[in-house]
Amino acid sequence: MTTLESTLAALRVHLVDLHRELVRWDLVVWTAGNVSARVPGENLMVIKPSGVSYDELTPGSMVVCDLHGRAVEGNLTPSSDAAAHAYVYRHMPDVGGVVHTHSTFASAWAARAEPIPCILTAMADEFGGEIPVGPFALIGGDEIGRGVVETLAGHRSPAVLMRNHGVFALGGDARAAVKAAVMCEDVARTAHLACALGAPAPIPQAAVDRLHDRYQNVYGQR
Amino acid sequence: MTTLESTLAALRVHLVDLHRELVRWDLVVWTAGNVSARVPGENLMVIKPSGVSYDELTPGSMVVCDLHGRAVEGNLTPSSDAAAHAYVYRHMPDVGGVVHTHSTFASAWAARAEPIPCILTAMADEFGGEIPVGPFALIGGDEIGRGVVETLAGHRSPAVLMRNHGVFALGGDARAAVKAAVMCEDVARTAHLACALGAPAPIPQAAVDRLHDRYQNVYGQR
Amino acid sequence: MTTLESTLAALRVHLVDLHRELVRWDLVVWTAGNVSARVPGENLMVIKPSGVSYDELTPGSMVVCDLHGRAVEGNLTPSSDAAAHAYVYRHMPDVGGVVHTHSTFASAWAARAEPIPCILTAMADEFGGEIPVGPFALIGGDEIGRGVVETLAGHRSPAVLMRNHGVFALGGDARAAVKAAVMCEDVARTAHLACALGAPAPIPQAAVDRLHDRYQNVYGQR
Amino acid sequence: MTTLESTLAALRVHLVDLHRELVRWDLVVWTAGNVSARVPGENLMVIKPSGVSYDELTPGSMVVCDLHGRAVEGNLTPSSDAAAHAYVYRHMPDVGGVVHTHSTFASAWAARAEPIPCILTAMADEFGGEIPVGPFALIGGDEIGRGVVETLAGHRSPAVLMRNHGVFALGGDARAAVKAAVMCEDVARTAHLACALGAPAPIPQAAVDRLHDRYQNVYGQR
Repeated sequence: MTTLESTLAALRVHLVDLHRELVRWDLVVWTAGNVSARVPGENLMVIKPSGVSYDELTPGSMVVCDLHGRAVEGNLTPSSDAAAHAYVYRHMPDVGGVVHTHSTFASAWAARAEPIPCILTAMADEFGGEIPVGPFALIGGDEIGRGVVETLAGHRSPAVLMRNHGVFALGGDARAAVKAAVMCEDVARTAHLACALGAPAPIPQAAVDRLHDRYQNVYGQR
Repeated sequence: MTTLESTLAALRVHLVDLHRELVRWDLVVWTAGNVSARVPGENLMVIKPSGVSYDELTPGSMVVCDLHGRAVEGNLTPSSDAAAHAYVYRHMPDVGGVVHTHSTFASAWAARAEPIPCILTAMADEFGGEIPVGPFALIGGDEIGRGVVETLAGHRSPAVLMRNHGVFALGGDARAAVKAAVMCEDVARTAHLACALGAPAPIPQAAVDRLHDRYQNVYGQR
Repeated sequence: MTTLESTLAALRVHLVDLHRELVRWDLVVWTAGNVSARVPGENLMVIKPSGVSYDELTPGSMVVCDLHGRAVEGNLTPSSDAAAHAYVYRHMPDVGGVVHTHSTFASAWAARAEPIPCILTAMADEFGGEIPVGPFALIGGDEIGRGVVETLAGHRSPAVLMRNHGVFALGGDARAAVKAAVMCEDVARTAHLACALGAPAPIPQAAVDRLHDRYQNVYGQR
Repeated sequence: MTTLESTLAALRVHLVDLHRELVRWDLVVWTAGNVSARVPGENLMVIKPSGVSYDELTPGSMVVCDLHGRAVEGNLTPSSDAAAHAYVYRHMPDVGGVVHTHSTFASAWAARAEPIPCILTAMADEFGGEIPVGPFALIGGDEIGRGVVETLAGHRSPAVLMRNHGVFALGGDARAAVKAAVMCEDVARTAHLACALGAPAPIPQAAVDRLHDRYQNVYGQR
């Protein structure tokens, strides 16, 4: 095996595990969500096949694509969202993983085209402020990817709500992107419930900044 | 085994699996939901027995019925909804599978006799517009089936909310009908939450049309 | 083994299974819910021990009590709700099983002292009308049991919401009582959601009556 | 093995089990919640490592800390919340276990800085009144621990909602603290739903007192 072959083999296995995390944390139903990983040092990414159920995913069913979302090997069609993932990788070199879901509470905010306000310390930690809303965009071409990249340009958030659609979450690697997708739904749910019974208490911007800085630099094992 | 016998045997096994999907996606409690499949080329369908819990379903417990919902073999009574399923098969020749549930969020829209507005791209994809509401109808005769067929006549949606009752979802085969039932509850939940905190952003009709066309013709493996 | 001994042994096993149903259908957290069964032909009932987690329940841990809720054998203390269960058995000779839960949506209606309106055909089927609210009552003596019995006297419903407290559900046997508890939470949830976004459509009383009659007499296997 | 070594070994195993309870009762997502236990008779506590997922927790990964939250052995960094746990142990000698979560409904009340009103008998039982709200406090130093201790001083509640943050729950041992965290989310959810559709019925203070006294002194096995 060449290095590239063994890298691809490992990413395929890893992506099966990460799709299981989408199911486990209730971010997806049926076949409607996907994870991709950039192949380090190559103009390639690996992504879920289109319309295949999570139970049936195997390492071999993952699709290797170029950074325009076109399959470069195998017989399976990549996710309909492949072009959007690819656009993100082309324009955000630090991004190593992308997740797309229609997770329930986040998509409810997206359906109102309303950003999720930063009213929880866990949001300040992970997102560094509100989770913004990107434009309405049709699937298939560059429209969604461009909306993701342009919307996130002005924010620290690794997740964006695409209007009337769902979530795109990014990370330095695919696992970090999945974490951002999980946390996005979690804070979307808590913020929804908080707003349902009244006005949440705001968090001062200076506290948001300190929480985000600490979480990004001190939290976890070093 | 004749061809019919082996077809029935396969459908019985398949229906046990599909009833498990109703449980897995939280569409049913206790015994209140059912799936049927048309027997291709015959005036027959196979359906869940009445009042049997999902744990106890076996291929042998599925009931073969004529297209008036009457059992044609065995000792078990078919689902109380058999007549409604049968009516659909008699009047909609392209339908190969029917699902009935009282799934929570969809039934809440049904209790208000309020269609689910098409405010999510996933709804445009699967339903091609709103999910409509059919009439209040008593169980047992043709009343429910007629309500399902007449209501869906003017819509692209494969699912209908029966007023004060629950969901009927249809498909080219039983698996497609289960998918429609799963997606119906998913969009019912997201749309409920979106409407709970304000007014959702509309999706232009032209975009709904393009999304539906693409999803029906491009999505998945070919 | 005498007949009584073998009856008790069977009920103990059955009750462990039924408590698992409470967990499975999300009706309970930690140790807060219980099922009992009348011992046919005896002034005895079998009930969960107090404060024991569902994981740790074994047939041997179930407590045989007289119909005043006092343990008649063994070292374990019966559920704090034993007196309420016992009162029901003393005053309602057709009741063979009693369930108590703090299931979430039903308890929310109970906290507002608001009956659940009959806006779903599934409610008409199982409850024959609204699910009524009983008085606020302190635990330990006959107060809760009396509230249950007196409130249900004027209703067809096998379940009652005790104000600020939770649900008592009854049945001809313990399994029927568990079913009533499961269905009570299911319709409480759907009715809550229906009412959250507007006014539900009413079901005419004549239709409620016909649905209830059919479900009690035709549904299921005969 | 010395007595201290065997105590620590047992606590490490016990804490793995208790973290599983956080997952099981849906109190946590990803890595965002933690349990600690005081080491009896020592100025030590054992706590979850920072940023490690619940699947990967082993007895050996738990971190022994002094009562300022500093690791005293091993290579793993303790939870970011270690200083808050430690502050509680230093100032509340009867506390043997502390739990921190961002459980959804409780955190929604916390985001509005609104105490959970005592409208359920289960709340009177476990919390003896409302669940109060502590101040907004930054993570890392004594600020959170001080907020927990000062807020609980005037209440019977073993749980406190920290503003815009989440829950701290205490107990005589770690299992009791986990129970308080589980019950806190359960009553937060029911109370949220009750308040969503109208005004809950109040419970008279004398009844709250009697329920709390009975539950603390009579409930469970003796």
